Amino acid sequence: MADSRGHIGRLLSFAVNQNALDQELSATDKTQILQMLTRFGDLGSNYTYTGSSRAGFPGQEDKGSRQRDESLTPRQIEELISEPIWQARLDFFHGLNQQATMLQPVGGMDRIADAFKNQVGSDIQYESIVKEIRKIVNGVRVVYEKSSIMTSLEVDYCVCTIPAPVLKDIPNDFSSEFQQEISNFGYSSAAKLAFQSKRFWEKDHNIYGGISWTDQDITQIWYPSFGFGKSKGILVGAYIWGTTAANSFANQTPQQRITAAMTQGSILHSEYTSEVTHGISVSWLKVPYQMGAYGYSTPNVLLNPDDNIFFAGEHLSILQGWQEGAILSAYNAIDGIVKKDIG
Amino acid sequence: MADSRGHIGRLLSFAVNQNALDQELSATDKTQILQMLTRFGDLGSNYTYTGSSRAGFPGQEDKGSRQRDESLTPRQIEELISEPIWQARLDFFHGLNQQATMLQPVGGMDRIADAFKNQVGSDIQYESIVKEIRKIVNGVRVVYEKSSIMTSLEVDYCVCTIPAPVLKDIPNDFSSEFQQEISNFGYSSAAKLAFQSKRFWEKDHNIYGGISWTDQDITQIWYPSFGFGKSKGILVGAYIWGTTAANSFANQTPQQRITAAMTQGSILHSEYTSEVTHGISVSWLKVPYQMGAYGYSTPNVLLNPDDNIFFAGEHLSILQGWQEGAILSAYNAIDGIVKKDIG
Repeated sequence: MADSRGHIGRLLSFAVNQNALDQELSATDKTQILQMLTRFGDLGSNYTYTGSSRAGFPGQEDKGSRQRDESLTPRQIEELISEPIWQARLDFFHGLNQQATMLQPVGGMDRIADAFKNQVGSDIQYESIVKEIRKIVNGVRVVYEKSSIMTSLEVDYCVCTIPAPVLKDIPNDFSSEFQQEISNFGYSSAAKLAFQSKRFWEKDHNIYGGISWTDQDITQIWYPSFGFGKSKGILVGAYIWGTTAANSFANQTPQQRITAAMTQGSILHSEYTSEVTHGISVSWLKVPYQMGAYGYSTPNVLLNPDDNIFFAGEHLSILQGWQEGAILSAYNAIDGIVKKDIG
Repeated sequence: MADSRGHIGRLLSFAVNQNALDQELSATDKTQILQMLTRFGDLGSNYTYTGSSRAGFPGQEDKGSRQRDESLTPRQIEELISEPIWQARLDFFHGLNQQATMLQPVGGMDRIADAFKNQVGSDIQYESIVKEIRKIVNGVRVVYEKSSIMTSLEVDYCVCTIPAPVLKDIPNDFSSEFQQEISNFGYSSAAKLAFQSKRFWEKDHNIYGGISWTDQDITQIWYPSFGFGKSKGILVGAYIWGTTAANSFANQTPQQRITAAMTQGSILHSEYTSEVTHGISVSWLKVPYQMGAYGYSTPNVLLNPDDNIFFAGEHLSILQGWQEGAILSAYNAIDGIVKKDIG
């Protein structure tokens, strides 16, 4: 990152000084942008870039202050821009959903679902498979099966949060444009795999949380961002969302996935062979009543009610794939029902 | 940040497309850098920048998904580069010492000092004021005063970590170039002030940790990065290092500092007047046996031993002002003694 900012700052300063942007920038703008770019890129005199202390020092963690005259050799611009993985990942953590610092509840993200369950759990019908969603006069009929018994429920409103790949095969009375958007709604084949391991990444490599990227199928290794300094931790050994790799992973047996993630991971960390155990994987594509990790199509008609049926879920939110998105979408449905009921 | 990256990416793309950088970039480089800049800046078609979802959505936190067609209006480049505070702070969190994600020990940074004390506390002479540091044959004599009793200690080596502004006035036998560097060593006048308060920044403003900057004397407000969701927290109401402001703060009484920080802070947060209490401040410039917050000169001769006297401390490290720097510097002194003892 320090090098990419350095080269970008250097090149843009050069263009400004060559008067190449005079149709965009006034004389004052030019003076000010050169000041900004010097700080942005940590540029030297004459707007050169020869590396930056922002990237750290060699041997910093164990060699004391004697290394003060050495700095890391910067990577050249040609090298940075010619690597597809660098180009593709440079913006990853700029996205709204990935910016530092992210928080999670103590105990993990499912504490949020548990907290809802603690509040409204008695209203939930568990293990109930929706078989039909029908329109009736001023209401909705939902037919579901529980322990082989069919029940028909007639209600004023239905808020349907069933993922589109499941919903499309449930008999319904939705209007055709709703049916069509549900049928065509794209879902990620993303999959994950985790291992238990001694924390070699902390002890031997000073890695405390974060991601390693690879162009192998496993795509990413995630290091735990909690429990620092403990003996063992859970390593995400694969987080795959590229369609080809994720589909290939989905079609493997759990043991095949573990073997592949072991082989690929050990290229990044030789400690894999001795430390990593207890592989466990999930491919949401294969999870019944889910059949996809998260929606990625841009919703349109599903943002509106179809008579008394409202749709909600992460796939209909501006934060697709996130619990926060699901909650934002719920607000939308609630507002819609309130408006319709009053209006 | 999203807007600054957007404009930088847009302007550099424009320069590349105008062939203004042809002496720097090959045709392949140009194709690749344009791809990279598009992702770096979240540019639209034809390398335009019209805002980015990376900056968030208006009303996102409470208005649900209905706002999906709205996005925040980007700030124009002229506006970004004309503000001194924006120019000056753009690079703050790029520095090696300020990059996300930073960790601290549970219980606060002084747990590190406490952990050392638990290990070596019995070897420490507390409340002992060093009065002289003298060279003797193959060793060092340190004279100190404790409870009005003077003690003279003769040792093989001395590792001196006394801050330079204190050390310069202790009678010593240092070589003249060492005395000179100690006398001239620059120290920051940085000062801090904290308040107790209900967590209005979390509840009312969705601020979870981080810094607000102001061009008033208080310079920064720091929000606590722990204890999220608790009723009260400690707010750093001033963290000043600019020399003029810090010296002015140092010369105020504790109550004057509190009053000033209240007045200035309430411009950023009107809740100050009702919520903020228990102000407490420190100006390290005024702390005996410290007389400065941290060193900022680049050390030279002090990195070497003066006969059997070794110097250490944060001010002699590559991470000045940090405990990690003090430890790195200690390694340097240890290595020096080992080498000298063997050699």
